[in-house]
Amino acid sequence: MIRIGILGYGNLGKGVEGAVCQNPDMELAAVFTRRSPQGVQVRTKGIPVLGVGELAHMRDAIDVLVLCGGSATDLPVQTPEYAGMYNVVDSFDTHARVPGHFAAVDRAAKAAGKIGIISCGWDPGMFSLNRLYANCILPKGQDYTFWGKGVSQGHSDAVRRIAGVRDCRQYTIPVPEAMEAVRSGQCPKLTTRQKHTRECFVVLEEGADPEKIEREIKEMPNYFADYDTTVHFISQEEMAKEHSRLLHGGCVIRTGTTGTAGEHTHVMEYSLRLDSNPEFTGSVLAACARAAYRMHREGMSGAKTMFDIAPAYLSAEDGETLRKHLL
Amino acid sequence: MIRIGILGYGNLGKGVEGAVCQNPDMELAAVFTRRSPQGVQVRTKGIPVLGVGELAHMRDAIDVLVLCGGSATDLPVQTPEYAGMYNVVDSFDTHARVPGHFAAVDRAAKAAGKIGIISCGWDPGMFSLNRLYANCILPKGQDYTFWGKGVSQGHSDAVRRIAGVRDCRQYTIPVPEAMEAVRSGQCPKLTTRQKHTRECFVVLEEGADPEKIEREIKEMPNYFADYDTTVHFISQEEMAKEHSRLLHGGCVIRTGTTGTAGEHTHVMEYSLRLDSNPEFTGSVLAACARAAYRMHREGMSGAKTMFDIAPAYLSAEDGETLRKHLL
Repeated sequence: MIRIGILGYGNLGKGVEGAVCQNPDMELAAVFTRRSPQGVQVRTKGIPVLGVGELAHMRDAIDVLVLCGGSATDLPVQTPEYAGMYNVVDSFDTHARVPGHFAAVDRAAKAAGKIGIISCGWDPGMFSLNRLYANCILPKGQDYTFWGKGVSQGHSDAVRRIAGVRDCRQYTIPVPEAMEAVRSGQCPKLTTRQKHTRECFVVLEEGADPEKIEREIKEMPNYFADYDTTVHFISQEEMAKEHSRLLHGGCVIRTGTTGTAGEHTHVMEYSLRLDSNPEFTGSVLAACARAAYRMHREGMSGAKTMFDIAPAYLSAEDGETLRKHLL
Repeated sequence: MIRIGILGYGNLGKGVEGAVCQNPDMELAAVFTRRSPQGVQVRTKGIPVLGVGELAHMRDAIDVLVLCGGSATDLPVQTPEYAGMYNVVDSFDTHARVPGHFAAVDRAAKAAGKIGIISCGWDPGMFSLNRLYANCILPKGQDYTFWGKGVSQGHSDAVRRIAGVRDCRQYTIPVPEAMEAVRSGQCPKLTTRQKHTRECFVVLEEGADPEKIEREIKEMPNYFADYDTTVHFISQEEMAKEHSRLLHGGCVIRTGTTGTAGEHTHVMEYSLRLDSNPEFTGSVLAACARAAYRMHREGMSGAKTMFDIAPAYLSAEDGETLRKHLL
């Protein structure tokens, strides 16, 4: 059994917990929290909840520590720190800071003889893998990534920070005509506005001015100004009833050509439709935790991404079984 | 530069040749044939065409030999034989015989300190990889593979063997309603007939009886009897004009559930639409040849499938570049 520790028990931590329960070769050993452990109730019965300080004493009880904090401030500190003690897996997704994060985790993990897999999930993660495979197979081509329909936590938070807004759920929606143009192999040049639209469901504070708030949302630089945005005002009851699911998804498409004169066009598409973003991401993290465990057992160490993981390491089955049933 | 040899210069060999030309870190060193070399004209200028016997003397000139023969009789002999002399890559696709083929290649490649990657292409190949990734991420779920719309060489050949048939092109077509049912997450149980239909375009010999031939096709066991098949009789001119492209494709879909009560459904789909099956397969073989070269340089040996290849090995770019541009 692979003994999994989870650090951080928010939506993502709960997603990892659920995934560990689905994998017969894994068991949840402990949940670690920066909050008061007494205040945290985990779903799996009999699992100890420990303060983060206890991680200094749990090396013999945990094979892989899955880090479920945020990319802004948690993971840049936590992943290098705990890669010096455990095999670790994270879902770091701040693209511009990947080189520094990778280097820091690599130093710590190599010094400790551990594996640290960063940026696991679906984007970065499965979408990255599909971009890589498609680029290797079709060097002459063009990549497109569409996100949605799905909830963007960052955009929802940005709207919530506007004075007079009590709650918001923001959906990112790919433009169907843009996706069709890409799938046709035409290699269209698409602006930000042509690729995605945004839709906001907003609950107002009492007395707030809807027209003013709608204008503030639509003109918000970086978040909304470059998009066609629709704003709906709804009640808190409707928000709870209709917009509680953290659904997401999207697709990666590469079109490319082969043939003596480039006369043959190929379209490779990978798409995800997810009812729960954190539960799916947690499921990817669990599979990567298995890979970390197995790569460590084979003597490897250092920072890795999903690019560096032979797919068979993600599976509980042996090579012969995989070749028989999935090849 | 990775020096590539090609054994077998049919459609697939030409596809590999085209792919090598698209990859700036590769060069075609020689084409080997069992035919008379004088009778073979290769598209790339200045490339030697050699008899298969010359492979005994070319080890210093070739880094990876790509085997482009058929799975029925060529590859079971060739891949183990040449894995004892070269890093090799093949597209072996006789599923039931993979264990024996893998074992034979493994023995030869390990003894010679070479890498032998078998069953590269899209199915087996990219479809297998997507089944594997999806199974690792969503252990509770169901796999579906649909093929087409595309030309099945085996089914076209089977019809051509009927007395009175001069030529045939057979298309395998997935049933749209079945694909939609799968995508909805309902996990339908589908019979062979419910998943695919077959369409034959047939040129008759003079005096042949179309009704009799149509009946013979539709009742042919294994090939057509379990499907709804449509037969069209056309002229040789129409065949040449409308049905010369070896298009193919299909999709792999896995749906699975997460959540405390399995209340969240996720749909993972990988699809390919290929204008030229052999050119796309050749492009996968070329990327796998790069992986064979790099894995061999790192001291690995033995038989591998795409399950055993860390995706980064398929790329000409280094890890830092991949993380920057594709992660």
